Amino acid sequence: MRMYDIILKKKKGEMLTKEEIHFFIEGYTNGSIPDYQVSALLMAIYFQKMNKEETVYLTEAMMHSGKMIDLSSIEGIKVDKHSTGGVGDKTTIALAPMVAACGIPVAKMSGRGLGHTGGTIDKLESIPGFCVEMTKETFINNVNEIKLAIGGQTANLAPADKKLYALRDVTATVDNLSLIASSIMSKKLASGADAIVLDVKTGSGAFMQDIDEAFLLAKEMVDIGQSVGKDTVAIVTDMNQPLGYAVGNSLEVKEAVQLLEGKGPEDLEQICITLGAYMLILAKKVGTEYEGKRLMKAAIDSGEALKVLKGFIERQGGDISCIENLDLLPQAQEIYPLKASESGYIHKIKGDIVGVSALTLGAGRDTKDSEIDLSVGILLNKKIGDYVEKGEVLAYIYNNDAVKRDLAIEQLLTAYEIEDTQPEYRPLIFGIVTKNGIQRL
Amino acid sequence: MRMYDIILKKKKGEMLTKEEIHFFIEGYTNGSIPDYQVSALLMAIYFQKMNKEETVYLTEAMMHSGKMIDLSSIEGIKVDKHSTGGVGDKTTIALAPMVAACGIPVAKMSGRGLGHTGGTIDKLESIPGFCVEMTKETFINNVNEIKLAIGGQTANLAPADKKLYALRDVTATVDNLSLIASSIMSKKLASGADAIVLDVKTGSGAFMQDIDEAFLLAKEMVDIGQSVGKDTVAIVTDMNQPLGYAVGNSLEVKEAVQLLEGKGPEDLEQICITLGAYMLILAKKVGTEYEGKRLMKAAIDSGEALKVLKGFIERQGGDISCIENLDLLPQAQEIYPLKASESGYIHKIKGDIVGVSALTLGAGRDTKDSEIDLSVGILLNKKIGDYVEKGEVLAYIYNNDAVKRDLAIEQLLTAYEIEDTQPEYRPLIFGIVTKNGIQRL
Repeated sequence: MRMYDIILKKKKGEMLTKEEIHFFIEGYTNGSIPDYQVSALLMAIYFQKMNKEETVYLTEAMMHSGKMIDLSSIEGIKVDKHSTGGVGDKTTIALAPMVAACGIPVAKMSGRGLGHTGGTIDKLESIPGFCVEMTKETFINNVNEIKLAIGGQTANLAPADKKLYALRDVTATVDNLSLIASSIMSKKLASGADAIVLDVKTGSGAFMQDIDEAFLLAKEMVDIGQSVGKDTVAIVTDMNQPLGYAVGNSLEVKEAVQLLEGKGPEDLEQICITLGAYMLILAKKVGTEYEGKRLMKAAIDSGEALKVLKGFIERQGGDISCIENLDLLPQAQEIYPLKASESGYIHKIKGDIVGVSALTLGAGRDTKDSEIDLSVGILLNKKIGDYVEKGEVLAYIYNNDAVKRDLAIEQLLTAYEIEDTQPEYRPLIFGIVTKNGIQRL
Repeated sequence: MRMYDIILKKKKGEMLTKEEIHFFIEGYTNGSIPDYQVSALLMAIYFQKMNKEETVYLTEAMMHSGKMIDLSSIEGIKVDKHSTGGVGDKTTIALAPMVAACGIPVAKMSGRGLGHTGGTIDKLESIPGFCVEMTKETFINNVNEIKLAIGGQTANLAPADKKLYALRDVTATVDNLSLIASSIMSKKLASGADAIVLDVKTGSGAFMQDIDEAFLLAKEMVDIGQSVGKDTVAIVTDMNQPLGYAVGNSLEVKEAVQLLEGKGPEDLEQICITLGAYMLILAKKVGTEYEGKRLMKAAIDSGEALKVLKGFIERQGGDISCIENLDLLPQAQEIYPLKASESGYIHKIKGDIVGVSALTLGAGRDTKDSEIDLSVGILLNKKIGDYVEKGEVLAYIYNNDAVKRDLAIEQLLTAYEIEDTQPEYRPLIFGIVTKNGIQRL
């Protein structure tokens, strides 16, 4: 078998066999197939597409390219959750303890942030002492004992995907449904979950700007999951503005904790409750979305989820006094109020631009080696649909450096669109994709 | 400017600017742009095509990527000739002295063969002592004094094309008209000719199997030439079987000399006369094809072309007694007659397979470092349209090794298609493409 023939075949629009896809992924992972042949194939895939079968083969090949995590020693059905990425997405920090509080084991591998979206681990590290490094045994014990542990992704998890993604990123071959879906699913499946709930974001701040495309991606991933025997559900949600009000590491932890205290922003709560309801369904804890949502709300109202969060943070070395008194989390030196220069209804708060402003303040990484300032970020004061008077505060800029602050303000202002009329209503949840099909709301 | 954006732009089907194409070619040549980005761009070009302007920019960028040969110190209009490659194509060896005999300077850079097509220099090196290494001054003096010199291509001639072609070859991105046309034309234009006559081959033994595609390629190259101010003509010719009867280095030299002695095969003569007629037109020696052909025939009939050939070989160190007595050229140890196993009309003699058989005998290079056996090859005894009796000789296998011979015979037999009925007539010359348009014959 030759890589040349595989490129040629895809270029002509023919379907690749399971053997050809495995040959390509194994060869690329072990270095026998060079980057330049793979990037040519990726571009051919962009133009000629892959069908469902090829996408499943690609997912399986990448999933098996490194270590497969074995969670079988954890009792119960392990349901993982994945978001396609958005700005201000602190969902995991609130959702994981909510689900764990219902007795469902949550054994999660999370990543660090790069570019304008933050990573769950970076956010949790705002809590002094919190650590994701632990032995596999400790990780499994923690889940068995307190139903929740969050670990860092090992370097050897689906290494083919890591290598392929890095190449796609520099060759303009990221935006293909099969490649996106197989990239996400290979990592999730290698992480050892029994079932998966996906949060597919769509809108200006998301990778999938178009709603129909987002549903196609959701369907593609659900089909992959079902094909390999893992029950999978995807929820398509709005990312036309940041989720909640907080963007930046300690600010987001604070907002997630406030949600578990019953004081969270409505959009974040609704997303957490809906995702959680489907996690409970896949874990066979409940039979309906209604029942799942009821349990999720109860986990907040009873304080159980907050209790689980604290127990989990303590287990992983974190100082829970910061959770009990949120002012003990890293604090920025200055909180600058950004005021509106005109009156009107807010039509847009472009998530990607808010993310870039937070990055400018130091909340994220430009490169893999950048250091993060955990205290800085942006706290929105108004969201889409709100009316703002000229001179009223649009957002607070938590910062430690006047130069960076001024640059971030300049960027942030371009995120807003303010008009005289009220914006059209846009739902938060667009629909649910299950093995039974697409249900648009 | 970033290579990423250039890939993205072409992927979306947009036109690249002159600056973008120069940035890409310069960066690739100097190593600042990696192979994997270039192969992604090449595949995007395959799918989205390049328009005429982009193709000209690409040609110019590659042409200027290395040394430009300056032939201005040669008197007269220098007309170069290029063939897109075929099996048994010894045209240059006969044609160059024919044109020079008419007083037109021929300053030619030729290449060595790789794979199943031979190179003019390899063929000429069958003549003991013949050498293409000489100073630039000697080269120019030779042309000024005897109107003909053939040199080897310098390593630094259009190096971007060399690098790009090697990459296309392993990434299945060879077959795009703009890429093929710019590759050929960049080298020709860097070689310093004032005008160019192209022999675009089509048929089973050629790169362009389809006649319409061949005309499109011809038109593309003529347009490039005209765009950069070099008068260019292309002739689309048949390569459904080897040209002439001889395939292999010394065998081909012999056949070319026989043509100049007035005893050449008809197809080779017709091609040489037609190409030569257009070279004389571009050199402003004659006004019409008819007049050009008359002069070409006269150069053979008068013995002038043969005289020029001998003078040229002598100047470049070759032993002309081999030309006077062709039996002094390298001789194979065995001449094996390959006999027909059935009677019938010959419908096909697939050129590429004949070329591969000659390669098996040792007439060509498998890799850049292979050594060539100048004496071996195949001498056809019958051509398409000929009737062959069972037991009659189809071809003679000139060989020095029984094992290689048997393998070559096995291959060669698959080149033939013999049927009961006469094949349809297929012309040798399909048409001429000039700046005034396409003229199909």
